Amino acid sequence: MNAEQVKQSIRNIPDFPVKGIQFKDLTTALREPDCLQWMRAEITKQYQSKGITKVLGVESRGFILAPSVAMDLGAGFVPIRKPGKLPAEVLEQTYQKEYGVDRIQIHKDALTAEDVVLLHDDLLATGGTMAAAIELVRRFGVKKIYVNFVVELDGLEGRKLLSDVEVSSLIHFPDK
Amino acid sequence: MNAEQVKQSIRNIPDFPVKGIQFKDLTTALREPDCLQWMRAEITKQYQSKGITKVLGVESRGFILAPSVAMDLGAGFVPIRKPGKLPAEVLEQTYQKEYGVDRIQIHKDALTAEDVVLLHDDLLATGGTMAAAIELVRRFGVKKIYVNFVVELDGLEGRKLLSDVEVSSLIHFPDK
Repeated sequence: MNAEQVKQSIRNIPDFPVKGIQFKDLTTALREPDCLQWMRAEITKQYQSKGITKVLGVESRGFILAPSVAMDLGAGFVPIRKPGKLPAEVLEQTYQKEYGVDRIQIHKDALTAEDVVLLHDDLLATGGTMAAAIELVRRFGVKKIYVNFVVELDGLEGRKLLSDVEVSSLIHFPDK
Repeated sequence: MNAEQVKQSIRNIPDFPVKGIQFKDLTTALREPDCLQWMRAEITKQYQSKGITKVLGVESRGFILAPSVAMDLGAGFVPIRKPGKLPAEVLEQTYQKEYGVDRIQIHKDALTAEDVVLLHDDLLATGGTMAAAIELVRRFGVKKIYVNFVVELDGLEGRKLLSDVEVSSLIHFPDK
């Protein structure tokens, strides 16, 4: 199994969720045991000497691989969620979406200044959600933040929004 | 690490999301590497001789452990999602909630009649969502369906709704 084979197993869905978007459907890769293992192992390999103490997944597709990677690294898993889902005290970050604003939250006691954080989501498009997640994590004064995606849509240049952290993606598509 | 220690690490939040509910917050366990590993290993142990080919997680907290268990078992991961999230053709199941109805979906090509399925979610309360998930999976004519939860609220007797499949939970609370 290699990046090209996993890339082939990702399904392209035209005009989802809206006309003009070529949606990258990872479910066709996740259901193949070899592809699933490859993704997890590649992420783990990249971060295993970084001293990561918490792996954060962004709701909901970021929940799929973040806990496996956390376990491989001997770290804990922390969810970043949409409003109203986390039951204890939260920190919240507002961010701009194409239409209107959105919010994400993290539990106030989820991290400490001693943590080294890996933030994970399945796909980097415009980068708005991840930029907000980074802001949220910065407020804890953590030692370092790394950011990882399974797929990056290079043409959208979302990486520019995340310019002051180390960002890596397993698979790249030229889409804008 | 044992079941009692993991149980202690689960936080009880009174009156969330509505008055009278004692919400079991697993995030305090998931952020502890030892608790996270224990949950995954306990689930894996229980199903490793069952010939499971697909592990299904129910959105979104079911996504947290299902993929890890899938990898341990050499199986694939398949998501069951809320409406409008899965981009390809879906099967849908409607079910009754306390107020009104809800719907869940699965990709039409996610399973075949050859599959042995483990359905996973974080918590068994009234069992409505999982009963709907079982109905959804049955339509594929799969060989066998197993159901697993991290936490079960025994007093709510959700298990009764799932009476024709093998159900197991790692941790029990007496709550109703």
